[in-house]
Order: sequence, then structure tokens, then C-alpha cells
Amino acid sequence: MGDPALPAAALDGGDLDRLLQSILFTDEDRAALREASTIVGPHVEELLDVWYGFVGGHDFLLASFVTPDGPSKEYLTRVRARFAQWVRDTLAADFDDDWLRYQAEIGRRHAEAKNLTDGVQGAPAVVPFRYLVGLIYPIYATMRPFLEAGATDEVQLERMHQAWLKAVILSVTLWSEPYIQHGWF
Amino acid sequence: MGDPALPAAALDGGDLDRLLQSILFTDEDRAALREASTIVGPHVEELLDVWYGFVGGHDFLLASFVTPDGPSKEYLTRVRARFAQWVRDTLAADFDDDWLRYQAEIGRRHAEAKNLTDGVQGAPAVVPFRYLVGLIYPIYATMRPFLEAGATDEVQLERMHQAWLKAVILSVTLWSEPYIQHGWF
Repeated sequence: MGDPALPAAALDGGDLDRLLQSILFTDEDRAALREASTIVGPHVEELLDVWYGFVGGHDFLLASFVTPDGPSKEYLTRVRARFAQWVRDTLAADFDDDWLRYQAEIGRRHAEAKNLTDGVQGAPAVVPFRYLVGLIYPIYATMRPFLEAGATDEVQLERMHQAWLKAVILSVTLWSEPYIQHGWF
Repeated sequence: MGDPALPAAALDGGDLDRLLQSILFTDEDRAALREASTIVGPHVEELLDVWYGFVGGHDFLLASFVTPDGPSKEYLTRVRARFAQWVRDTLAADFDDDWLRYQAEIGRRHAEAKNLTDGVQGAPAVVPFRYLVGLIYPIYATMRPFLEAGATDEVQLERMHQAWLKAVILSVTLWSEPYIQHGWF
């Protein structure tokens, strides 16, 4: 994030504002994400363990990381580090222009730039789009126990968890752009 | 739904099963949707009032229904009837081949077949994809009071509401197919 070599995002600030309105994302959600950041920050690796367990347990999800030599550990490890960074950036909730540009880059790394970033040979050319949307649910649901462990009460827990769901939906929306037919995003 | 003229869906039963696994959708969710159907069924028009209020209150969402003569009431009314049917079909949770084919048709009606079905002239050519994903959140969240009004307790309420979220994510995933670059879905 912040690399000046990244191309401009497809969306400008006004577009993002409209998208946030459509998701019902408010300043209260931004505050809730930052509260969640304090709670989840020290446990991001455990969260990644859960997600990688889920991916590893489903061959059709693991398939994106499989080369003719089997699942690429190096590729999985490099993606994992970026996934952890995405969690931290999302919980920081600084949805500025650098962040928008980086979300566009994450999208490209699932689509036409998959494998390139990590110099991977022989893995599938793209992550099938259906799973980007489908995984909204487990990425949302599996966050709850981590929030629960640090929440002061049920109300704060629910507020943080709903904000997280909105933020995941927002991210997946932005990542979808390179998959979409020209002009239809 | 069930029109034999509809083309085959992009996904077969095995694809759907994998997608359901990625969303963590289980038989318990199917049962929960059917419980929700009993509760929400008599109130679908009120639910549509809420959603149409939301769309009508945001010019960038209403824009999909706007022609040079302003928002098309006839178009809004015809889409509304299909939207109500989608709620009923989703809560019935018969995710069979007819249903898959009809979800593919709903996707086309947001994309390349938008306006055609209803003979609309001068409205935008497609619904921007970003809002299909973004609207997962309000479509999920605004269901809760309707479920709450008929739920026997908090546990059933939560079970039905989570199943609804999964079903909305599933629908939007299927609707996205015609928007996606060839072979990347």
C-alpha cells in the first residue's frame, strides 16, 4: 500500500462515498472497526490459521494455489502475509486514496495479475470469481470469536461484527472490478 | 422460474454444492430459511416498501430506473413483483436446477438483458455491478425486524438471519456471472 507505481483506482472519493452509503457504512462503523483493531490486532496470525484451515480443507479453494508439483507452500506463505496486512488495513479503516488503489491491486492479483506478483508457475490463471463473493460469509463469521474474546459487552461485539461484515463486502466489491466486463462495474 | 425457454445455468449441481460449502450453507440453513418463509411470507410487500424506500432515497441507486422522462413507475413496479418472487423463492430454499437457471436469468436482467424484459427505453444499460455486491448488506440487515416479529426466541432469530445472509450472498454470486470476463466466473 502507498506504492506510487500503483495505477489510479477505478473509483474516486465520490464513488467510494456512494458505495459506502449503499452498504450502510457510517462513521460509527469506522469507529467500531478501530475498536476491533485493538482486540484482533494481536491475534491476526490465529485468524489466518482458521482461514487457511478452511481453504486447505476444501480442494476447490486450495486449487488456486496448486501447481503441477502440488500446493505451493511458498505461494501460500506469501499470500498469507498480504492477507494479514489486509486484515490490519481494513480494521484501521483509513479508506483513503492509497487504500483504494491498493484494493484495486488486490483485485488484479486475484485476476489478470495472479501468479505474476509471486512468480508462481503452473497455478490456475485466476481465482474463480464465485469464491470471492462466497467467502464473504466465512470471513465474516469466523471473526466473531476473536471479537468476542475482547468485547466489553454484547452491544459492542455486535457493533464491531456488523462493521466487519460491511468492510468485507466493501473490499470484495472493490476487488471485483478487474473481473467485470468493461464499463459494467 | 421453470420456463423451459431459459438457457442452462453456468453452474451444475456439483458447482452449486461447492459454492454452498464455501458459504458454509448447510441443511440447517435450509430449514431456517423455510421457518423464515412462514414468518416473512405475509409481509413481503412491507419488506419491499423498505427496500424501495432505500433505493428511492439514493439517486445513484434509483438511477438504474431513470429514463429521460424521469424514474419509470412501470419499470419499478414490474421489477418489484419479481423482487417479491425472489424473496419467496429464496426463502423456499429449493435450490434445484430450475432455481439455478432462474438466478442466471436474474443476473442477465441486471446486465445485458436489462430493460429488454420490460421494454424500457432510455434507462441505463446495466445496473452497475458494485451495487449488486454492496446491497448485500442492506438486504440482509433490513430483514431482521421482520424475522424478529415472528421468531420464538433469539436463537431462532439468529439462525434465520444468518441463513438469510448466506442465501443473499449465494444469489448475488449467481447473479454476477454475466458481468464477469469470460472464463473467470
